[in-house]
Amino acid sequence: MEDADGSFRMASRKFRREDTVVEIAASYGAAIGGGGFFVIAGPCSVETEAQICAIAREIKALGAQALRGGAFKPRSSPYSFQGLGADGLTMLLKARAASGLPVVSEIMEASQLPLFAEVDVIQVGARNMQNFELLRELGKSGKPVLLKRGLSSTIREWLMSAEHIMAGGNPNVILCERGIRTFETATRSTLDLSAIPVVKELSHLPILADPSHATGCARYVESMALAAAAAGADGLLIEVHNDPGAALCDGPQSITPAGFGRLRAKAEALRAALRDS
Amino acid sequence: MEDADGSFRMASRKFRREDTVVEIAASYGAAIGGGGFFVIAGPCSVETEAQICAIAREIKALGAQALRGGAFKPRSSPYSFQGLGADGLTMLLKARAASGLPVVSEIMEASQLPLFAEVDVIQVGARNMQNFELLRELGKSGKPVLLKRGLSSTIREWLMSAEHIMAGGNPNVILCERGIRTFETATRSTLDLSAIPVVKELSHLPILADPSHATGCARYVESMALAAAAAGADGLLIEVHNDPGAALCDGPQSITPAGFGRLRAKAEALRAALRDS
Amino acid sequence: MEDADGSFRMASRKFRREDTVVEIAASYGAAIGGGGFFVIAGPCSVETEAQICAIAREIKALGAQALRGGAFKPRSSPYSFQGLGADGLTMLLKARAASGLPVVSEIMEASQLPLFAEVDVIQVGARNMQNFELLRELGKSGKPVLLKRGLSSTIREWLMSAEHIMAGGNPNVILCERGIRTFETATRSTLDLSAIPVVKELSHLPILADPSHATGCARYVESMALAAAAAGADGLLIEVHNDPGAALCDGPQSITPAGFGRLRAKAEALRAALRDS
Amino acid sequence: MEDADGSFRMASRKFRREDTVVEIAASYGAAIGGGGFFVIAGPCSVETEAQICAIAREIKALGAQALRGGAFKPRSSPYSFQGLGADGLTMLLKARAASGLPVVSEIMEASQLPLFAEVDVIQVGARNMQNFELLRELGKSGKPVLLKRGLSSTIREWLMSAEHIMAGGNPNVILCERGIRTFETATRSTLDLSAIPVVKELSHLPILADPSHATGCARYVESMALAAAAAGADGLLIEVHNDPGAALCDGPQSITPAGFGRLRAKAEALRAALRDS
Repeated sequence: MEDADGSFRMASRKFRREDTVVEIAASYGAAIGGGGFFVIAGPCSVETEAQICAIAREIKALGAQALRGGAFKPRSSPYSFQGLGADGLTMLLKARAASGLPVVSEIMEASQLPLFAEVDVIQVGARNMQNFELLRELGKSGKPVLLKRGLSSTIREWLMSAEHIMAGGNPNVILCERGIRTFETATRSTLDLSAIPVVKELSHLPILADPSHATGCARYVESMALAAAAAGADGLLIEVHNDPGAALCDGPQSITPAGFGRLRAKAEALRAALRDS
Repeated sequence: MEDADGSFRMASRKFRREDTVVEIAASYGAAIGGGGFFVIAGPCSVETEAQICAIAREIKALGAQALRGGAFKPRSSPYSFQGLGADGLTMLLKARAASGLPVVSEIMEASQLPLFAEVDVIQVGARNMQNFELLRELGKSGKPVLLKRGLSSTIREWLMSAEHIMAGGNPNVILCERGIRTFETATRSTLDLSAIPVVKELSHLPILADPSHATGCARYVESMALAAAAAGADGLLIEVHNDPGAALCDGPQSITPAGFGRLRAKAEALRAALRDS
Repeated sequence: MEDADGSFRMASRKFRREDTVVEIAASYGAAIGGGGFFVIAGPCSVETEAQICAIAREIKALGAQALRGGAFKPRSSPYSFQGLGADGLTMLLKARAASGLPVVSEIMEASQLPLFAEVDVIQVGARNMQNFELLRELGKSGKPVLLKRGLSSTIREWLMSAEHIMAGGNPNVILCERGIRTFETATRSTLDLSAIPVVKELSHLPILADPSHATGCARYVESMALAAAAAGADGLLIEVHNDPGAALCDGPQSITPAGFGRLRAKAEALRAALRDS
Repeated sequence: MEDADGSFRMASRKFRREDTVVEIAASYGAAIGGGGFFVIAGPCSVETEAQICAIAREIKALGAQALRGGAFKPRSSPYSFQGLGADGLTMLLKARAASGLPVVSEIMEASQLPLFAEVDVIQVGARNMQNFELLRELGKSGKPVLLKRGLSSTIREWLMSAEHIMAGGNPNVILCERGIRTFETATRSTLDLSAIPVVKELSHLPILADPSHATGCARYVESMALAAAAAGADGLLIEVHNDPGAALCDGPQSITPAGFGRLRAKAEALRAALRDS
C-alpha cells in the first residue's frame, strides 16, 4: 500500500520559514544547520576501543565536529560481520570522552532505543527510512535523528519520513543524502546532489551528504564531498579509517585521516570563497 | 554499509534441488509451491467485521485459497489511515472461521509477533524486506512468511533476505514479486516478471506475483495476473474489494469479486493449457 | 531539450477506436494486430546465405510468420562485427524467396532507405526511437515500421515517436516492447509487460514483445514469451539460431529451432485457452 | 543487440596519459580541458538575429567563452517548435561575428554536416549518443564534438561512443554530463556528478556539465553548476535567455544574464580557492 498523494506539513518550508538548527550536544556547543558546515567522520564499524579512540583523536585534530561509528550493522548477508552491538556503543562513548567529539551511531530497531540514551545523534539508515515503527519511537525521544534517504525513495517520501518523526514531537531531524539506486554501476549508488537545492526549497531541515557510501570508492570521495559543499549542503558524513585495507567492513570506500585532512581544508576554502563572492 | 558480494546458501537451488512446498495451515490442507497454483485475495485493509467476512465468503466461492487483509498499514504519511491494528487481526480471524480460508496479514515490526500467533501466513512488506531484526525474529518463529521484494532490491538481495529467515531455522519462505521502482510512471511500479524464471533457476523457494500493488490500477490487474501465471509463478496475491470506490485505501487498484472470478477462471484455463501442451 | 507535456494524437485510442491491423505483405496475406498472433523469428545477424535460408525454412515449418535478420547492426563498440550491410539484405531476400516468409530488418539511418525497398517490415531499434530524422523519413515511406521502445523511454514518449511516423502519413506502425533499463542486473533489461495493457488502453496500434533482447538469456525466453502472450501482446519477436554457441552476435540469448517449436506450440495453446475461457 | 563486454581504447587513460585539450577555434585561442574552465552559455533555441546577437554580447561581457544556440531541435512531439534550421545557424554565425564568441550547435543527423562547416563545436544530443552513423561521420570531420551522455547510458557506453568518433580519426571529443533518467521526479533528470571523477580516472577527455537540462529548473542551476565545478568539471554548458518567460522552448530552466554573471563569478572564486588550498 502506498499513499503518494499525501504531503508533509511540519517538515515544509511553509510551516517554518527560517532554517532549522539542530543542537547536537549542548555541552559541546555543536549544532547542524543555520549556515555552518558540520563534518562527521569515522569508521564504518567500531572495531576495538583502541581503534575508535585513536581515530577520534586524529579526526578531531583535523577538524571533524563529530565521530561516527557503527555498533549495529545492517548486512545483506546473515553471515557477514554484524557489528559489536552494545559493546560497540560503549567503546564509542569512550572515544567521545577521549576526544571531546559528540557521537553518531545507527539504530536498527525501536527496541534498541534504551541503548542509545547517551548517543548524541541517532542515525536511521537508508533501509529503515520507511520503518515507520522506528520513526514513531524516535518521534517520542527528542534526540537528534540523522535520517538517511532510502535508495529508491523520492525526495518527497524522504521528507514524509521526517514528518513521521516530527509529528511525534521531535523537531530535531537532520537529512542525509547518500545516493539513489540507478542503472549506473561505476559507482555503488548515484549521489543525487540536486536533492540539496530541492530540499532547501521544500524544507527548513538541514541536509548533509555522504559521498563515502554513495560512491563506494575512496578515490571519488573528495570530489563528491566538495561538490556537496558547493551545492549548499550543511555538512558531510565521511568514512575515515586509520587502515582502510584492514577494515572489517567498507574498507574500499574509507579514506585515511590524511586524506580527510585535505578534504576538510579544501571544503573550508571553497565555502569561504563562496561566502565572499 | 552494503555487502554485495555475499551469497545466499540455504535459499539456493544448490542447497536444495527440489522445489520447496510451504504448508500453510495443516488443518486446511493448503500449501504453496510444488506445481500447484495458490491464489490469495482480499482487501488492502480490514475495515469492519461484516466487510471482511463478506469478502472472504465471496472470494472463497470464486476459488481463492487464502484471504489477505491488512491490520497494520505502512503509510508514507503519518496522517493517513494506519489500519485497525489488533482489532483488525481479530476481525480477520473471524473471517477465517466464517469462510474456512487461511489468512495472510502484514507485520510491521518484531514486537507485533505475539499478535500474529493465529495468523496463518505473515507478510513482510516491500519496505521491510531489509529490516533484518524483523527477519531474524521471523526466522525463530517457524511460521510461513510471505516476503515481498523491495522496490529497489535486486533479486539477489531478495534471496539474501530469505536467507536471513532461513538461517534462523525457518524454511517456510514464500517470495512475492510486487514491482520495482523505475522511471516509468504509467504504472505505480514496474512488475518484473522476469524475476520468476530467474528465481526458479537460482532458488527452490515458491514465488507469487502481486499485480495489484505493482500496477496500482485495477484495469491492468488481469493482464498482469495471467502473465505471471504464464511465466511460471506459483500463485497470485490479488486485491479484491466489494466496493472499490469506497475502499479506505488502495481503491483504484482493487478489482471486484466478479472481476476476480473471471481472472481466476482464465488463470486456471491458461495453466491447464500449458500443462497439456 | 525535452517537451514532456506534448501529447500524441493519431496514435491515440481517441483518434481511432478500433485496433489498427498492419498489412505486412499483401502477397503473403500477413497482418499484425486485430486479434491474431504474429510471431517473427530468426537470427540476430544474417551471416551467410546458407545459414539464413536454412533457418528461414526451419522456423517456417515450426509456425513462424516472418523472418528477422540483421544486416546493419548497432554496436556499442566500433570494433565489434557490424553486420554484412547491403549484402546481408540481399541474402535475407533470398531467404524470403526460399521460405515464403516476409522479412524484417533494422535500418540505421534515413540514407539507407533505398536499400530497404524490398524489405517487408523496417525495424527501428531502441537506440533510434528518438532519431526524429529517421522517423520523419519513415513517415513518408508507407512501409510497415516495427518501432522498438527505447531503453529509457516512457510509454508516452514511445507513442510520441509513433506519432512522428504517423504525422508524416504512414499509419503502419507496430510497437515492440524490448525491456527498459533498471537497476536489476540478473537480466539484461527489465521486460516491462505492463506496457502491453497500458498501450492497449492508450493506443490502437499493435504491440509485440521481444523477450530475447530483454532478458539476454535463452533460458528465460520461453517464460517471458508466454507471459507476453498472456498479457495480450499481438505477437512476438524471437531470436532463433541454428547453432547459438557459434552465433556472430547475441548467441547467449538465441534459442534453437526445437526450443522455438515448443514455445510456439505453448503460446498457441495458451491463446486458445484464453479465447475459450 | 548489445555488446557490453567491449571496451574503449583511444578514449582510455591507458592509451593517453595526459589530459586531452581540445582546441575550439584557433583564431579565438579557445580550448577545453587541461586545467582551464570553459563556460558555454546561450539560449536553447536561436529565435531571431537580434535575440541571439544581444545574448551573445551580454554573456561575453559576463565571462562566457562560447555561445550555444539550437537551430535544429529534437522534440518528442512532432507538433512542437522544431527550430529555425539553416536560418538559425546563419543567425548564430552572425552572433559569433558580433560578439567574438565561438559557437556550439546541435546536429541531428549526418546529412546536416555541410551546414555545420562554420560552426566551431558540433553538439551531439543525448538521444543521438548511440546514433552510430552520425558518430562515424563526425569521426571523419575533425571538428570538435560535444558529446552529451544518453539518458540511460552508462559511463562506459558513453566513452564507447566517444571511441566511435575517435576511431574515425577525430580526437577532438568533449564529454558533457547532462543527467540520467531515474525514478526521482523533483528534477527532470538526475545530474550524475560522480561521472566527473569516474571519467577523469578512466579517460583523458575533457568533461563539462549541463545543469540546465539536468535539473530542468532555473532555481537549481547555480547550485549544480558550482557542484560540477567543485567536482572537477572542465567547464559548464548553461542555458541563458534574456527573457526566460517568453522563450520558445525550455524557458523554465533558463537563467537570466544577471544570474549567469553571479554564477560565473562564484565558479571562478570557487576554482581559485581550490587551486590555492
